[in-house]
Amino acid sequence: MKHPKGIVQNKENNIISYSNRGMALEDDLNVTNNYYIDKKIAFIYKKPTPIQIVKTSFNPFKITEAFFKEASTTDYNGIYKGYYIDYDAKETNNKTSFPLNNIHKHQLNHLKNIDSAKGIAFLIIRFNKLNRTYLITYKDIENFITNYNRKSIPLSYFEKHAHLIKEGYIPRLNYIEIIDKLLEEL
Amino acid sequence: MKHPKGIVQNKENNIISYSNRGMALEDDLNVTNNYYIDKKIAFIYKKPTPIQIVKTSFNPFKITEAFFKEASTTDYNGIYKGYYIDYDAKETNNKTSFPLNNIHKHQLNHLKNIDSAKGIAFLIIRFNKLNRTYLITYKDIENFITNYNRKSIPLSYFEKHAHLIKEGYIPRLNYIEIIDKLLEEL
Repeated sequence: MKHPKGIVQNKENNIISYSNRGMALEDDLNVTNNYYIDKKIAFIYKKPTPIQIVKTSFNPFKITEAFFKEASTTDYNGIYKGYYIDYDAKETNNKTSFPLNNIHKHQLNHLKNIDSAKGIAFLIIRFNKLNRTYLITYKDIENFITNYNRKSIPLSYFEKHAHLIKEGYIPRLNYIEIIDKLLEEL
Repeated sequence: MKHPKGIVQNKENNIISYSNRGMALEDDLNVTNNYYIDKKIAFIYKKPTPIQIVKTSFNPFKITEAFFKEASTTDYNGIYKGYYIDYDAKETNNKTSFPLNNIHKHQLNHLKNIDSAKGIAFLIIRFNKLNRTYLITYKDIENFITNYNRKSIPLSYFEKHAHLIKEGYIPRLNYIEIIDKLLEEL
């Protein structure tokens, strides 16, 4: 059983937000991805949150007991210009570094698999207090983990290796621009 | 609200099967995809079934009322040899044709988008009573719909245009062989 952080409920006991972390970034990405889909630029979707169903009732059919399960992969995947795109989105309130324990081991392993299969694997990481959102490739995360024995990635590493995502009105987080740059370097 | 067909419950009111149709084909594909993942051949996953959460309780956190939602895309996607793979799985008990109303309009539209973005878009369709499972590309489905004013695709169209998937022990449904053939023709 998983008790997600950041759960918010209203007076009617309804869920308002049940994201693990960072509903704001998730919202921005969903709006951005919908824009890309509308314009037929890219087809990238957030996967539904997996749940474990415990009990149901019938007539009408209803789920009456269930829990969130931990996802075995990342939250977002899709296609852009024929390339397979795969990423997860993370937020931190830390101002000077991104704690690596925000990335689950199975997610890193999944991104490694995608990278080795020639997919575009990355994380989108937002520093909430700095109002900055970076795209960092799986390879740059792997390089950091391999070369430094540290529990968090300092902001300076992002400034040097990651890509700052331009924020705007439409699209809200134009990360496809950065994928274009990555593809040029392939 | 959606009341999935094929719901089965046991005495403890637990769900045994809550697949819309064809748990058997879904099982075969999951076992096959796990084999591909283990062998690092392909990384293709079934997306979780989306649910609409209505009520929750806290301490411990629990979903206490929810319903299945209709998916806006297909059930399976992933990567093989750098190619973006996207498909849905369908079963029919019909022996002579596959009724087109089994494919939702938004799924067809999604597969069209994937196809136009240079992804590998298809359906895996099992004729339960014939013990045959076909892979049919989105393009061949589109061609059928464009050229014939019919409500179902006859078996003869599958025999001519679709690809029969070899069934075995490991992997159970070796559809990657067929994708290899499709890639040769690209």
